[in-house]
Amino acid sequence: VTESTTNRAARIRALARAISVVERGGPDADALEADLGPCSATWVIGVTGPPGVGKSTLVDRLIGTIRSQGSTVAVLAVDPSSPISGGAILGDRVRMTRHSDDDGVYIRSMAARGHPGGLAAAARSAVRVLGAHGFDVVIVETVGAGQNEVDVASLADCVVVVVAPGVGDGVQAIKAGILEIADIYVVNMADRPGASQTVADIGAMLSLAPTPDWVPPVLQTVAIDDHGVDELWAALERHRVQARRAGIADARRRARRRAEVTERVLADVRKRALAIIESDVAAQVVDRAAAGEITPIEGARRLGEMVSQRL
Amino acid sequence: VTESTTNRAARIRALARAISVVERGGPDADALEADLGPCSATWVIGVTGPPGVGKSTLVDRLIGTIRSQGSTVAVLAVDPSSPISGGAILGDRVRMTRHSDDDGVYIRSMAARGHPGGLAAAARSAVRVLGAHGFDVVIVETVGAGQNEVDVASLADCVVVVVAPGVGDGVQAIKAGILEIADIYVVNMADRPGASQTVADIGAMLSLAPTPDWVPPVLQTVAIDDHGVDELWAALERHRVQARRAGIADARRRARRRAEVTERVLADVRKRALAIIESDVAAQVVDRAAAGEITPIEGARRLGEMVSQRL
Repeated sequence: VTESTTNRAARIRALARAISVVERGGPDADALEADLGPCSATWVIGVTGPPGVGKSTLVDRLIGTIRSQGSTVAVLAVDPSSPISGGAILGDRVRMTRHSDDDGVYIRSMAARGHPGGLAAAARSAVRVLGAHGFDVVIVETVGAGQNEVDVASLADCVVVVVAPGVGDGVQAIKAGILEIADIYVVNMADRPGASQTVADIGAMLSLAPTPDWVPPVLQTVAIDDHGVDELWAALERHRVQARRAGIADARRRARRRAEVTERVLADVRKRALAIIESDVAAQVVDRAAAGEITPIEGARRLGEMVSQRL
Repeated sequence: VTESTTNRAARIRALARAISVVERGGPDADALEADLGPCSATWVIGVTGPPGVGKSTLVDRLIGTIRSQGSTVAVLAVDPSSPISGGAILGDRVRMTRHSDDDGVYIRSMAARGHPGGLAAAARSAVRVLGAHGFDVVIVETVGAGQNEVDVASLADCVVVVVAPGVGDGVQAIKAGILEIADIYVVNMADRPGASQTVADIGAMLSLAPTPDWVPPVLQTVAIDDHGVDELWAALERHRVQARRAGIADARRRARRRAEVTERVLADVRKRALAIIESDVAAQVVDRAAAGEITPIEGARRLGEMVSQRL
């Protein structure tokens, strides 16, 4: 039985609404998430790398491969440089149009601003909603310039780091912090000069890192021509199997939950401490510091004591 | 008497070291800052805007104008997208070479990473060190792509927002959050088509905002040709006089100190809460949440109680 267009539209609207709720955070979000229950069946793939290396195109081609295997896929495109969350930023308009008739694909953008609990927390909750909605695969893609590689790593079961010969910082960017988080390297735009050098550079770096359970492969793709994308998908599936076998997947899931608990406590403590700092009891100390009668450091010391007593 | 080259080099090294100390934060930074005492004589100018509008060139030309007036100037170039702090990133190599013989100019870059207390706190401390070092003017410039406009606003006595016709998000970026913080607008690259339209767009936006004490002027510059830079300097000086007269400068200084006290308390509370979460007493709850036996939300609730009792 084919689902009616009306039903489908209503279901997608409900999904979009649920993501908007968890994006905003707060008690409504917590209640919604508590209702979702645990959902570990979804496979979360992170795609990150410097701007301009063709991540969006690569993800678009991956969608095609995933759909051809019969799996459903949702994409969460996280753009830390965009102020506007919602459905249609950057290249997503194009992608959404391309896949708009396909019920097995859902694409959602998430901007940096407007998440009181932080972008990482909002993305994590959105991934959970997408998983509960039944998508087999969720791709979390960073769009634009970003410092959020680590955030992607904290969400994903497998992290794909994309670079391109001569684009962005390339290997430099990897050295600066992405190295530890990559499960698979992709040198996209591999038809450009310098591709094999980039592959060699990454290989040289990897030879220095300890990789007992999984040696990150370095793949070459030309996403715009759909070259190498099936090979990327195969590598992803190999990683999935191996990660399960070696206990990596479980260890990551535990680490993620641990990180989430910590974050939630810290966010809550922060909120309560802020309420104390902004309350009448603290006003005198804050005012004296504001007037320059005591230094900010001394003011902070006195307020810290008040917070300890009242929290 | 001319200072010997050796003395000068030693003094600059000491300054660089002091900034590195406050960048790292912690007790050493607090002690160093406490020794500095209050320093409100330095005039702090923030320069921000979308990437690619020529902020660095504009600041370079401003340095020239400021030096021709006999004032000394330090530039803190904050680059949220760069992983490497220190002396020489991006165009700063060029700028530093250009001004390297001039004792009245100091240029320092600050990257996003490596500041345990946050970039804004590190920048604020660096500005304080530069002020204590006797620079008449400190320019805090955002480099690259950034979400840190607001941080600049929280540091500066006067905020210059730079846009360019057809570059970046332009007026779109302004609408998204810079509007409230701008004291002066600069349409740089004003020899490009669309400049007068950009000026008109900003003017239209401004007409909607309440500006009782200061109406932000909208200036046009071609920084690369040094056009309009003296006019920008004149506008900056007008703002300085008017801000003092209307009490804006004092109000901002108070707001800044207030914000700093709050930030310091929150950073400290966070550190102490984290220590509790990572201590033995919390281990059982964290472990159960990590294992999926209780939800992260429930785990966070229980840990929150522990933190309240022990903080």
